[in-house]
Amino acid sequence: MKKIINDPGTVAAEALQGMALAYPDLLTVHFDPNYVTRADGPQKGKVAIVSGGGSGHEPLAGGYVGPGGLDAAVPGAVFTSPTPDQILDATKAADGGAGVVHLVLNYTGDILNFETAAELAEAEDIEVRPVVIDDDVAVKDSTYTAGRRGVGGAIPWYKITCAAAARGDDLDSVVAISKRVVANVRTMGMALTPCTVPHSGEPSFVLEDDEMEIGIGVHGEPGRERVKVTSADEIVATLLGNVVEDLPFESGDRTLLFVNGMGGTPSIELHLAYNSARKFLADRGIEVARTLVGNYFTSLEMQGMSISLLRLDDELTELWDAPIHTPAMRWGV
Amino acid sequence: MKKIINDPGTVAAEALQGMALAYPDLLTVHFDPNYVTRADGPQKGKVAIVSGGGSGHEPLAGGYVGPGGLDAAVPGAVFTSPTPDQILDATKAADGGAGVVHLVLNYTGDILNFETAAELAEAEDIEVRPVVIDDDVAVKDSTYTAGRRGVGGAIPWYKITCAAAARGDDLDSVVAISKRVVANVRTMGMALTPCTVPHSGEPSFVLEDDEMEIGIGVHGEPGRERVKVTSADEIVATLLGNVVEDLPFESGDRTLLFVNGMGGTPSIELHLAYNSARKFLADRGIEVARTLVGNYFTSLEMQGMSISLLRLDDELTELWDAPIHTPAMRWGV
Repeated sequence: MKKIINDPGTVAAEALQGMALAYPDLLTVHFDPNYVTRADGPQKGKVAIVSGGGSGHEPLAGGYVGPGGLDAAVPGAVFTSPTPDQILDATKAADGGAGVVHLVLNYTGDILNFETAAELAEAEDIEVRPVVIDDDVAVKDSTYTAGRRGVGGAIPWYKITCAAAARGDDLDSVVAISKRVVANVRTMGMALTPCTVPHSGEPSFVLEDDEMEIGIGVHGEPGRERVKVTSADEIVATLLGNVVEDLPFESGDRTLLFVNGMGGTPSIELHLAYNSARKFLADRGIEVARTLVGNYFTSLEMQGMSISLLRLDDELTELWDAPIHTPAMRWGV
Repeated sequence: MKKIINDPGTVAAEALQGMALAYPDLLTVHFDPNYVTRADGPQKGKVAIVSGGGSGHEPLAGGYVGPGGLDAAVPGAVFTSPTPDQILDATKAADGGAGVVHLVLNYTGDILNFETAAELAEAEDIEVRPVVIDDDVAVKDSTYTAGRRGVGGAIPWYKITCAAAARGDDLDSVVAISKRVVANVRTMGMALTPCTVPHSGEPSFVLEDDEMEIGIGVHGEPGRERVKVTSADEIVATLLGNVVEDLPFESGDRTLLFVNGMGGTPSIELHLAYNSARKFLADRGIEVARTLVGNYFTSLEMQGMSISLLRLDDELTELWDAPIHTPAMRWGV
């Protein structure tokens, strides 16, 4: 294992300390238990949005905390769900009196721990509403989930849900918008290489020099199939073919196309894949109205990508375009 | 070689096509010869800023084209200098009548080809002034340079030089500001893994499972020494020790600290290293007033990082903070 770290046990905490020092104008980082809140929070009268998950998926979720973004993010240990007490403290710190939405990616541990935290928060008179995303079309159940996994679609889901809260929507309305994104976004990913969790020191799986895993999970858990590496055009056709068929997306649909790097894939390959994806969608009459390309939901140093497609309507487009000012996303302000 | 590509010979061109489709509001991409200009260019009466270099260092330089950024970027083939005709066409397309600054990273091929292009442009009555950056403290001469290499310091150098042009400075003033950045920025990098140029298909060098290269070049060319992998704190102390000693930076200096990923290093390690760097600098009384952490000048999928330190004054700080709206950097607008 070759990594720029000091101690496998303190990787997540030291990276959080780095974030605290790097973005003091945006973030307040709390330790023991660990969570991240807006430096200017809580926002009185605004619906608060809280999310989280295992570390190792940076910039998720701390990178999305700030005006127009999340009110709080709760990082677990690497590839490990945050604990109920972390989530509870973050929920209390984020609450501005208008209720709290928990954005939960569909992993069994996350579902359970967010549920427990929500019950504890309700006992303290904070209204909490969960919304769960399960956008991965690759597999029905997985090592870590009952049902589909929550993967790259989480990024536009965060952006749009948070924008609805930022413009002043009430709890019901924010939840409705958030569920509309879930209903309209689909994702599928692939990997060329595994990643290594610092604490284990061993690669999460083994791929031969000419193999890739299609439908990979973000923890390196198995996907749909292991095949020989093919061309970017063929990889994209496999991923987007499944994505388009699933919703289904249809000719005339207006979409946001998101090519996400898994952490170790260079920008040049992501933009090349984006070009392949545009050709694939153009051939099917699917319009790409908005774009995101980059490392926005990673799996440590894994090489690979996921492709997400979100069917837009005017309101979702407007909320996507709304200002955001966070470490990982910043526009319009 | 495992990459998300179609054909090793068309990687750079297909990625450019992807950028053209991804950022139509910001960029106009020209082919044969290849270069990228501002969608709203040329800007009449503004000093134009043009840079470039080999592809494979994304988001350099196309990612920095746009308002508050470069007027044009010229990408060569992967790890290959752009040709004089590319640079000439980009220079002519960027020229707004107030002169053009060529921002050249110190590599022999780049220096020669930008010089030739400048002569050809001058023959067409465009005033061109080159500024060269050579911020790498690792080695005196290298495989690809006479003198020091131009590395990560190029990113704050771009930002600040372009901001001076954007606020309306004349050619002399922009050049003076640009040279002031060069005089005050120093960088050193390291790598845990090599990268593979698509056309060659072979890793640029070989490192054993427990080795790292200190003072690496951005093309994988040798650095200062090959040593056993140590802790993040020790790696940072080596890089920043050389950086601080070189200028030298002194107690009381106000700086911009830039931890740059080489492409394959995850965000969690970059922020952990940033934390180590802050401790190192705090111990020496060096203030960090501005921060940049991320993959801003890569070497394909290489795992590793460089650390740059720029001594700020009030004007450089103001120009760093000025609005920019490009694919890779966006703030204040």
